[in-house]
Amino acid sequence: MRKIGAVGVMEKPVPEPGPNDAIVRTTAALICTSDSHTVRGAIGDRHDLTLGHESVGVVERLGAAVEGLRVGERVAVNAITPCYVCENCLRGFPSQCLQALGGWKFANTKDGALAEYFHVNQAMANLARIPDDVPDEKAVYACDMMSTGFMGAEHAAIPLGGSVAVFAAGPVGMMAIQGAKLLGAGQVIAVENVPQRQALARRFGADEVVDFSKEDPVRRILELTGGQGVDSAIEALGAEETFMNCVRATRPGGTISNVGYHGAGDYVRIPRLDWGVGMSDKAIRTGLCPGGRERMARLLRFLSTGRVDPTPMTTHRFPFSAIETAFGMMDRKEDGIIKPLIRF
Amino acid sequence: MRKIGAVGVMEKPVPEPGPNDAIVRTTAALICTSDSHTVRGAIGDRHDLTLGHESVGVVERLGAAVEGLRVGERVAVNAITPCYVCENCLRGFPSQCLQALGGWKFANTKDGALAEYFHVNQAMANLARIPDDVPDEKAVYACDMMSTGFMGAEHAAIPLGGSVAVFAAGPVGMMAIQGAKLLGAGQVIAVENVPQRQALARRFGADEVVDFSKEDPVRRILELTGGQGVDSAIEALGAEETFMNCVRATRPGGTISNVGYHGAGDYVRIPRLDWGVGMSDKAIRTGLCPGGRERMARLLRFLSTGRVDPTPMTTHRFPFSAIETAFGMMDRKEDGIIKPLIRF
Amino acid sequence: MRKIGAVGVMEKPVPEPGPNDAIVRTTAALICTSDSHTVRGAIGDRHDLTLGHESVGVVERLGAAVEGLRVGERVAVNAITPCYVCENCLRGFPSQCLQALGGWKFANTKDGALAEYFHVNQAMANLARIPDDVPDEKAVYACDMMSTGFMGAEHAAIPLGGSVAVFAAGPVGMMAIQGAKLLGAGQVIAVENVPQRQALARRFGADEVVDFSKEDPVRRILELTGGQGVDSAIEALGAEETFMNCVRATRPGGTISNVGYHGAGDYVRIPRLDWGVGMSDKAIRTGLCPGGRERMARLLRFLSTGRVDPTPMTTHRFPFSAIETAFGMMDRKEDGIIKPLIRF
Amino acid sequence: MRKIGAVGVMEKPVPEPGPNDAIVRTTAALICTSDSHTVRGAIGDRHDLTLGHESVGVVERLGAAVEGLRVGERVAVNAITPCYVCENCLRGFPSQCLQALGGWKFANTKDGALAEYFHVNQAMANLARIPDDVPDEKAVYACDMMSTGFMGAEHAAIPLGGSVAVFAAGPVGMMAIQGAKLLGAGQVIAVENVPQRQALARRFGADEVVDFSKEDPVRRILELTGGQGVDSAIEALGAEETFMNCVRATRPGGTISNVGYHGAGDYVRIPRLDWGVGMSDKAIRTGLCPGGRERMARLLRFLSTGRVDPTPMTTHRFPFSAIETAFGMMDRKEDGIIKPLIRF
Repeated sequence: MRKIGAVGVMEKPVPEPGPNDAIVRTTAALICTSDSHTVRGAIGDRHDLTLGHESVGVVERLGAAVEGLRVGERVAVNAITPCYVCENCLRGFPSQCLQALGGWKFANTKDGALAEYFHVNQAMANLARIPDDVPDEKAVYACDMMSTGFMGAEHAAIPLGGSVAVFAAGPVGMMAIQGAKLLGAGQVIAVENVPQRQALARRFGADEVVDFSKEDPVRRILELTGGQGVDSAIEALGAEETFMNCVRATRPGGTISNVGYHGAGDYVRIPRLDWGVGMSDKAIRTGLCPGGRERMARLLRFLSTGRVDPTPMTTHRFPFSAIETAFGMMDRKEDGIIKPLIRF
Repeated sequence: MRKIGAVGVMEKPVPEPGPNDAIVRTTAALICTSDSHTVRGAIGDRHDLTLGHESVGVVERLGAAVEGLRVGERVAVNAITPCYVCENCLRGFPSQCLQALGGWKFANTKDGALAEYFHVNQAMANLARIPDDVPDEKAVYACDMMSTGFMGAEHAAIPLGGSVAVFAAGPVGMMAIQGAKLLGAGQVIAVENVPQRQALARRFGADEVVDFSKEDPVRRILELTGGQGVDSAIEALGAEETFMNCVRATRPGGTISNVGYHGAGDYVRIPRLDWGVGMSDKAIRTGLCPGGRERMARLLRFLSTGRVDPTPMTTHRFPFSAIETAFGMMDRKEDGIIKPLIRF
Repeated sequence: MRKIGAVGVMEKPVPEPGPNDAIVRTTAALICTSDSHTVRGAIGDRHDLTLGHESVGVVERLGAAVEGLRVGERVAVNAITPCYVCENCLRGFPSQCLQALGGWKFANTKDGALAEYFHVNQAMANLARIPDDVPDEKAVYACDMMSTGFMGAEHAAIPLGGSVAVFAAGPVGMMAIQGAKLLGAGQVIAVENVPQRQALARRFGADEVVDFSKEDPVRRILELTGGQGVDSAIEALGAEETFMNCVRATRPGGTISNVGYHGAGDYVRIPRLDWGVGMSDKAIRTGLCPGGRERMARLLRFLSTGRVDPTPMTTHRFPFSAIETAFGMMDRKEDGIIKPLIRF
Repeated sequence: MRKIGAVGVMEKPVPEPGPNDAIVRTTAALICTSDSHTVRGAIGDRHDLTLGHESVGVVERLGAAVEGLRVGERVAVNAITPCYVCENCLRGFPSQCLQALGGWKFANTKDGALAEYFHVNQAMANLARIPDDVPDEKAVYACDMMSTGFMGAEHAAIPLGGSVAVFAAGPVGMMAIQGAKLLGAGQVIAVENVPQRQALARRFGADEVVDFSKEDPVRRILELTGGQGVDSAIEALGAEETFMNCVRATRPGGTISNVGYHGAGDYVRIPRLDWGVGMSDKAIRTGLCPGGRERMARLLRFLSTGRVDPTPMTTHRFPFSAIETAFGMMDRKEDGIIKPLIRF
């Protein structure tokens, strides 16, 4: 990112590690829609900021105080890299490191990971070894897509055998569907209108797919749940209308789990009556991609055993030299692109 | 309640109990602000509906299938009287009995408890014996004020020694303050502008009182918490602006616990940036006065040991014959009235 | 059960329903190992007590106060039939209705369900409709095996992608394996030595099977988890040695979920050092088959969608007229019997 | 500690800080009974190991990578000093840093804090500023006594207004009593036979005191709870008999929270029938003094506002020069000593 609205490859020196840091040589990366948001100015202006937060690679250098890691190891790094020693981290909210959303450092408060080398703070906590049987192109999904999508399901308080609606089957929504299935949902309803994404939603575990462009999704969800609404709704788009539909489609005592980044407007409205005038025991949870090597190890285990395979989302592959082409296609959502894999 | 906007005493026959029910002869009651809301049409039109849901009394008759209770026992009944056998009750949300807010039956779906005799469904679960050392005028606070206010604190996920802001020190807000203190809050900040209520807020445990009519309450709360915001905010008024201030005053990872009845508008807005664009690990909980004799027994224990004494809220006392006067004063909030006690 | 040690079929009148009860005409049932325990005197002497607690059937009669059910509907009844209105039920522990284990009424405090007709208390809460696409021979597994085994996993606090050891792959252990898988376990290790049960354990989701008769199961579990131990261990046998191995095989901060009925000895020992001298953040949970129609509906949904199919455990089938033969085989665990299905 | 059984003051060089560490100059300390256990060999032999883990002081030096702290600040350090970056820390169990009980480093895996200067690892996470209005002699109680005792109550899952039994009113037990009160217990029963400690137990919030030397404490607790047993029992001694009494005195669905260090025997027994044969929904929790500056700040807030005052436990005061005398008295529990304060 050169400035708002402009991207391009540039040369930068390989970063130096502080005592607790590591430098990773990148081997594979994904481009995220939020990179496009950043370029459009979602987090304010940035100049000559390296983008990207979904990368895996090989340890190139380690800080003097780093123990338990070796140069040359294959590692994955979560999109969120908390310090783990500040007050918010100690409170149990590392994604809110130092301040709201402060765990998100890549391509926000420091250079991102779409580069040949990138810097990782608090390396002992943030670098996860990749098992030998997990290729880079799978491991890279643990950095954000799996962690964020699964968090959507973890926050949704799904009762065993319960019903879940996932609004929007983009990459995070698909992983929320997969996560709901992993966490014991008995009925998963995806709300999505793009046929390619509808098919993937079913592949990742949706029992029903509702096309909001053809019918009122809330009414359809009520029909599918005997008039009661779902136990849990996951907002995986970041739009006010979708959020309101989550509140409407959830039964009393249910949970709305917000994953989507709400990028527009001063307010996000709750429909008052569907919220039970604030008394219906409906809960609204929010969160930001949980990081840390311990969680990464659990996510990588799903890839190692084959229980989860996110690679059907990899619709395109590019060498790093074609990164500008890839970024442009992702920005314009051309050619049915879902996730483009970048090889280094 | 005769119809919307009109109240008056009327004669009705003493109700008959079904097999699982009880009839209670009333000895003491409180009038609730929500009774005024009902008369103004908040829950739609009702004709010749007995009002009231905060009453204690003596068991007059018991249904054929009721065990473990005796005629003549002093009993308290929560404002909410769930069936405990429907799907929502079995899910753990008895206040949402059958449907959203469906546990609220008194003066809503059946006659209320501001009468010489009133009917209690599912008596085995809903009637709580009053300990001998707890007078009626104290016990009556367990029916709604203590149960609802304490729920506000229970839903607020207060860390031990954490900070809590309670917006509005009406009767429920005061009990939310008391509840926060009971649940280990280290710093309780009340937001209230009426001097009499400010004084009571301090009496019930507020460490700080912020007068929103003299300063921006959110700014003041941030100052009082070293710029971080509170761990937990409790909305005890039912106003959009207050709800938004709860979101603003709460730190990332904190919890907003809504207790207030939101009676106006199609939407209740969440301020988007203060909500961390839906990613700040802030949670929003809601609920409706939890009932049941087991909870009532725990609340009555606080009255029995003297750890809680809500009677400073009893600003006025009336015989049942003056109920219309009492109702009018409560409706107009005259003479510094907080809770009027009705003796039968 | 005639008396301790003696079983036999006897004629009894069809029971009468009280106002909240139902009478069910049985269509299918399973025999449980705990029936054998009962006959051997595990719960004390009983005379002419009908055994059985895993039965489904058709509503024959309904009490006068029962609503929402119709004579002729196909219904499943959990092994545990709480009243839902006593103090322990209201506290959220219906399996401990009135007293410890008090929700267990069939073949304990009243006649069981291995009969042509049986009585169900609190029918509105305890009778679950069976979906049309779920045959009786599947639905009958929801009564105890699925509910108990899944509870073992629900109590185990399995982190997403975490490791779980299940000790003993009897019917409940197999359902605990299935439950761990449903709840997001990343690695499930079954401890079992019978080849037939090892094969079923794999079929229900075990990633690894440890044969305790050939190697020290704790050492093997440590090897399989990189020396750390599992996040969660489920005791599904009811033996002190197995329970101790659960404590030994669980990492600090992990959870031991006890499902097994401990039938012998005055004490069940915790190995002190493996328990971290009482300071290792290891938790021990216990429980008894959760009941209620709402849970039953969620379990039946898994059968309806085909996500769970417990019928590979049905090794034998008998008509009700051969019940004594079936009971004898189950008692002696002959012919590789796991669960015998009884048709009426 | 010179070796097992021998203590004495010795000269050591002032330690050097690594990049993430701090050196603190001690101003006040407490001696803990566990120091005596250590000297007797509870954790194995140690040679020339500095004892102590309850000290406060002033920052003397800071490592190069430490931010947000200044030399000269008054600070408190918890007895447990986790690294916060290892797998167990990231799992949410920092007291089990690296391995079971591994967060306990002072006087275990490195020199303790009963010295003029002591070393603190991961200083940013482990050093808490002491508010100006909290004197050293109060702050020092946050290091272990308050944090451990309050943890006992936090793990006990006390329902609001619920009943709690605390077994043994030593310093940790007294703080467990105080913690139960802070967390909303409605009835706190202390089990203690020493009159001085009984009086302090009442002062810290016990509603009832049971003298186990005069009556069966379990029977008495059952009487005090209407025959039901307590919702929560806290083991604050570390003895098998006391632990068993916790299981016996707890009602079905209740929680036993173990705080005591169990130092003897191969096993700690659970009484089988009182445990409900492993099916009574009784839970057993364990833990080790939670640390970290964020928690310390919450504990210090209670001292700052005066809501908690642990200093009545300070029965004796000594200068550091008299440390050997103090240690001997503590070891022999002479002169009614509870906590001796050491001034530097």
